[in-house]
Amino acid sequence: MTTTDPNNATTTGAESADVGATDYNQLAEELHRSYQGKLETSLRHQGDLTRRELSAYYTPGVGHISSLIADDPTRLREFTWTRNLVAVISDGSAVLGLGNIGPAASMPVMEGKALLFKHFAGLDSVPIVLDCKSTDEIVETIQRIAPSFGAINLEDFAAPQCFEIEDRLRETLPIPVFHDDQHGTAVVVLAALINACKVTGRDSNALRVVIAGMGAAGTAIARLLKIYAPQCTIVGTGRNGALSLEDSSLNDAKRSLLEEGILEDESNISLAEALAGADVFIGVSAPGLVTADMVENMADDPIVMALSNPIPEIYPDEAKSAGAAVVCTGRSDFPNQVNNALAFPGIFRGALDNGVSQITEAHKMAAAQALADFVEDPSADKVIPSIFEDGLSAAIAKGIT
Amino acid sequence: MTTTDPNNATTTGAESADVGATDYNQLAEELHRSYQGKLETSLRHQGDLTRRELSAYYTPGVGHISSLIADDPTRLREFTWTRNLVAVISDGSAVLGLGNIGPAASMPVMEGKALLFKHFAGLDSVPIVLDCKSTDEIVETIQRIAPSFGAINLEDFAAPQCFEIEDRLRETLPIPVFHDDQHGTAVVVLAALINACKVTGRDSNALRVVIAGMGAAGTAIARLLKIYAPQCTIVGTGRNGALSLEDSSLNDAKRSLLEEGILEDESNISLAEALAGADVFIGVSAPGLVTADMVENMADDPIVMALSNPIPEIYPDEAKSAGAAVVCTGRSDFPNQVNNALAFPGIFRGALDNGVSQITEAHKMAAAQALADFVEDPSADKVIPSIFEDGLSAAIAKGIT
Repeated sequence: MTTTDPNNATTTGAESADVGATDYNQLAEELHRSYQGKLETSLRHQGDLTRRELSAYYTPGVGHISSLIADDPTRLREFTWTRNLVAVISDGSAVLGLGNIGPAASMPVMEGKALLFKHFAGLDSVPIVLDCKSTDEIVETIQRIAPSFGAINLEDFAAPQCFEIEDRLRETLPIPVFHDDQHGTAVVVLAALINACKVTGRDSNALRVVIAGMGAAGTAIARLLKIYAPQCTIVGTGRNGALSLEDSSLNDAKRSLLEEGILEDESNISLAEALAGADVFIGVSAPGLVTADMVENMADDPIVMALSNPIPEIYPDEAKSAGAAVVCTGRSDFPNQVNNALAFPGIFRGALDNGVSQITEAHKMAAAQALADFVEDPSADKVIPSIFEDGLSAAIAKGIT
Repeated sequence: MTTTDPNNATTTGAESADVGATDYNQLAEELHRSYQGKLETSLRHQGDLTRRELSAYYTPGVGHISSLIADDPTRLREFTWTRNLVAVISDGSAVLGLGNIGPAASMPVMEGKALLFKHFAGLDSVPIVLDCKSTDEIVETIQRIAPSFGAINLEDFAAPQCFEIEDRLRETLPIPVFHDDQHGTAVVVLAALINACKVTGRDSNALRVVIAGMGAAGTAIARLLKIYAPQCTIVGTGRNGALSLEDSSLNDAKRSLLEEGILEDESNISLAEALAGADVFIGVSAPGLVTADMVENMADDPIVMALSNPIPEIYPDEAKSAGAAVVCTGRSDFPNQVNNALAFPGIFRGALDNGVSQITEAHKMAAAQALADFVEDPSADKVIPSIFEDGLSAAIAKGIT
């Protein structure tokens, strides 16, 4: 079956350097094969289970617990694992860089996300992959299984469908629903930006920000940033340059961003033109999209967040040579890794511990501020903590009340 | 919060005597409160998780595993926890003796069932409670989440809806679907009956059997018994006595049992009349339904399975005084406890280990035979093993191929 003994791994240093994505393929295959998956269920009960205890955990004793919950549904959290349980739900339509690979192939990713929930926040988590595609089907299916969980993490749903799915679930379900690809990313980007402003002596309300890639993440970043700093200017760009209402092919989600004034409508300009004089570039787009020339034309000491993964819009050394004062990427082998795992464990930990029924914009801003504040002395090479720093999820959880 | 230290329980003997159901209420409340539920998720990985391993379990390494599954969906079982994962799914419509209590209140029961899966067969198990009621909604919801699991245990769905739900799921899903209230019960009853026939020197094909209560369990018992012993006579009784096609109020499920010849059509007779001269009484009905007189009028050395729980159709001492040679109940404080936990852990263990895509009638008969054979020397007080006997689920699993 396998030749790998997982208890005898050759790499044990917690901070061993990252290499390219393909170098992880073999290790991934070895680990997944030898452990045959990443999760299991276990009993909370400690010690032997006696016949008497079994009769209390199951019939006849469990009927009493059901009756208590039937009388007062809030007791569900007191007596069942839902208290600490997050569903990681996906339809497999926008998985990592792989695209629409469907439910089965997305399972290892969702199981991995559930592993992160447990590892970083002690949250129990169950991956659920959905074999349906329409917004109505997805929404009604999640509504129907929702009583099984304490909170719902939506994962890897494609834009723009993800917006309506999340909105409808938030409106109808009594438990937190959070599309991490949108809001987790937005929280970490805002945290990094708060500290990058500090390091470069900027007022966030005076920023000119260009976001490349107005999908799930780009949209959420723009919305959260505009709430945090209402006076800042944000230009969003796509394949045809800056988003503008003059473009009749824009979908409703993008149109709203312009109509609501989240994005400036600067028609007929390219990404390079939008970046001229800008303070901040945030890329959630495509490898190599940004050139050194573009960075040179930004404002002095610009902030470059090149988050395309694993190949960024511009590599840190090139951006720095072109004058960037702070550079963030999505990779762990460069400083300032913008990684959702910095935020979502603490946000869900706080939501469940504090009985929060919805994760609001205020919660997201509190999480971003807590994450920024977690860096004691921000510098160009440290605007954001590492996911391995102790106490991170607890620090974020405190603010989700 | 709680005054109970679960590690310092006063009862530790695995075989301490059962008492009435209400006596378990306090222990149930203490255990559920102190452990705050019965399940948790944990990582299969042993030892510390390094940054490098995290990058293999999640992005970027996990993308390779997704690609492998996208190329060959059978690898889902090789690389994910679905290999060992059973969903325990209910709509909360027929929960224990509590009836239609809905999804939230049914959660403790489903979580308890998941605990039994882990405890008795090492199977990971996730409870899913459904907030929907129509057959179409239930079927389509389960179909949509099915790729998340290796097998599906349907639990506490009301009859007759449960029959159509299971049939449609079995026809459309590529994984085992098993309504335990029907088939788990039927397997254990058949096992007990096989040994009871041995003990009383009977040929199963010559039996006259009366089943009281033709709901989910009664229906499945009749169907499985008729496959095992096609020549036996089975009469099913309900509130109006023996089921008959002359009763125009019969639902389709009951009508089918008569039309297919599973049940004899003995019109206009009462339960007492049906039992006169019968070899076997199987009660899945109501407390106290059977009198000593009725047992006295059965054949010599009759077999009485009074499975209404916790109060049987007739208590063992009364049945024995009236001449019963073998008495089974659903309770652990009398000999011969007919308990579903004797069967379903091994059946699912076998189905997942052996890659079985449907649990067939042949599998159920193999399971019943394995369970009967597990009792080395059957006697009146031991026609069925105890759920605590080692090796039980493995012995059953072997036959599910």
